[in-house]
Amino acid sequence: MRPDAPPDDSPQREPPTGEWQLLERLHARLPEPPPRVLRGPGDDAAVVAAQGVCVTSVDAMVEGVHFRLRDAAHTEAPDAPPGWAEPADVGWRATAAALSDLAAMGAGPGEVYLAAGISPPMGAAGARALFDGAVAAATEAGAAVCGGDISAAASLFVAVTVVGWSPSAAELVGREGALPGDLVGVTGALGGAGAGLAVLEGRAPAPAGSNPAGRVLRPRPRLGEGRALAAAGVHAMIDLSDGLAADAGHLARAGGVRLDVDLEALPLDAGVVEVAEALGWEPWRLAACAGEDYELCFCAPPDRRAAVEAAAPVTWVGSVGPGGPELGLSDRRGEQTCRGFEHRL
Amino acid sequence: MRPDAPPDDSPQREPPTGEWQLLERLHARLPEPPPRVLRGPGDDAAVVAAQGVCVTSVDAMVEGVHFRLRDAAHTEAPDAPPGWAEPADVGWRATAAALSDLAAMGAGPGEVYLAAGISPPMGAAGARALFDGAVAAATEAGAAVCGGDISAAASLFVAVTVVGWSPSAAELVGREGALPGDLVGVTGALGGAGAGLAVLEGRAPAPAGSNPAGRVLRPRPRLGEGRALAAAGVHAMIDLSDGLAADAGHLARAGGVRLDVDLEALPLDAGVVEVAEALGWEPWRLAACAGEDYELCFCAPPDRRAAVEAAAPVTWVGSVGPGGPELGLSDRRGEQTCRGFEHRL
Repeated sequence: MRPDAPPDDSPQREPPTGEWQLLERLHARLPEPPPRVLRGPGDDAAVVAAQGVCVTSVDAMVEGVHFRLRDAAHTEAPDAPPGWAEPADVGWRATAAALSDLAAMGAGPGEVYLAAGISPPMGAAGARALFDGAVAAATEAGAAVCGGDISAAASLFVAVTVVGWSPSAAELVGREGALPGDLVGVTGALGGAGAGLAVLEGRAPAPAGSNPAGRVLRPRPRLGEGRALAAAGVHAMIDLSDGLAADAGHLARAGGVRLDVDLEALPLDAGVVEVAEALGWEPWRLAACAGEDYELCFCAPPDRRAAVEAAAPVTWVGSVGPGGPELGLSDRRGEQTCRGFEHRL
Repeated sequence: MRPDAPPDDSPQREPPTGEWQLLERLHARLPEPPPRVLRGPGDDAAVVAAQGVCVTSVDAMVEGVHFRLRDAAHTEAPDAPPGWAEPADVGWRATAAALSDLAAMGAGPGEVYLAAGISPPMGAAGARALFDGAVAAATEAGAAVCGGDISAAASLFVAVTVVGWSPSAAELVGREGALPGDLVGVTGALGGAGAGLAVLEGRAPAPAGSNPAGRVLRPRPRLGEGRALAAAGVHAMIDLSDGLAADAGHLARAGGVRLDVDLEALPLDAGVVEVAEALGWEPWRLAACAGEDYELCFCAPPDRRAAVEAAAPVTWVGSVGPGGPELGLSDRRGEQTCRGFEHRL
């Protein structure tokens, strides 16, 4: 934990007291850490009692790339699409996205470390809101925020490092490992984040009776499901951060197999059908080609089917065959592709 | 490790193939990981065999705040000072700065995780150079780069998370713990980074026979010294990232003690006297008020003096007294302060 300077590139500088006070105030907002955390924030590094294997991932989100701040007229071109995220949403979302990588391995939640670049208009209040959002997402997932770094920056970024723990590497699941004959499944329901973004950007009206925007702003990593699926014996697993069409492709490539997914079988989140209709799209496009649902996609041997269904709410959406590496997507009219949505979708 | 999209805020997007190819190429440049690394980059998370306690810190560096890129006319105002860092320097410097936090705890080097935002003019070539610089700094320090995240960004940032290991928390040293009667010491020589920046920014000519600019661009974390000093029984330790005047103040505050530092006793790096003369400053100002030397400052009981001197090249620069928390800086003319250099120095 090292407070950084106000905008001044010189390594020769007065102690940036403002930043230190901010960090101290942020630390004071943290919930009591669990006993494994032997030193929390406030020293040069955090110290945590280790166990088994350490599972680590880092994920960054950048203003104008992964989100647009609602109050960002200062950093945007006049014709830019409207902003849709508050600093607290950004903190939550970046933390949840990073924790989702632990879910995809079947690891338990451990510690969260934040590095944020705070833009001048956000200031200390925006930094606090970002931090509170990150802490809330971590706390809900059972992880403890144990350190970070705050710097000035021209536009907001946040990089979240998550550390998870598992008794041994044998209890974790990688992307490789799918075998011909496996079933392909997903947790939860898909397309909500894609539908939510369309609503937030004003491309579709909000569907009655559902709130897909919440799926974009406050995703929930499937940590419990990930561990239960790993224990149930799935062969390969990934989280749906870039969309099923991309992420299932990673499973096919890593396993050297062909994955066939039935697009009509994809479980659709509330509001997805309505938003897809407003956009003039097949609903499966929002479920397969849009990212950031943060559900899990996995391949399981048929003899583990009952164990998997007992482990988590899942939907079977395809199967693994020989050949490949290749991903086949088909609906009732035959082979489909997500291409054509490259820049806008 | 999750590749991110090109500038497009939509979570609905085509797989950003360019980013994945770049990541694969970056992974191919990595040296063989040590046996403790059970899964390196390429899956959702890295997996490392744990031991004892896990020591973690994160440090971010931001273009225009912590450095100016040499070729950054596109992002700078016409009257901005000249740029002085290449992408490879930025990767090295950010990694070394983060590893220095492990040195300050007396932890051994473990893994490094990078999150970088790459500006359009840097492109893939700049990202590779940044990555190579980070890998070189990690490798020299005995750490393994095990994962990361690359995103587009309007200007360059890099957040480095470092994980170190120690058999137990009892073998680590925090900022607290200084006791009245302790001696205050520093490793190596100080002021080189401050002198180097003055040279890089054209505020002073390069001194003959030394290269202080290298001290800014390629700092070397004192990991071996940190572990040896911890084993020798120092009570409190911190790395000199913000300058002795700031960092020794942290030791005083954390320990609730008064630290007195004799500014005339500070060991001066090669070229510091010449650059200070060109600037019209007392040389100690570069050694005490400038940051980023990444040496270590520590407090040790007098009965450990010989053990400390045997552990690392150190210079004794002061003592700990009762009262405080307070930091006293004095030279032959009496009490001094680093104030007055707040924005430029």
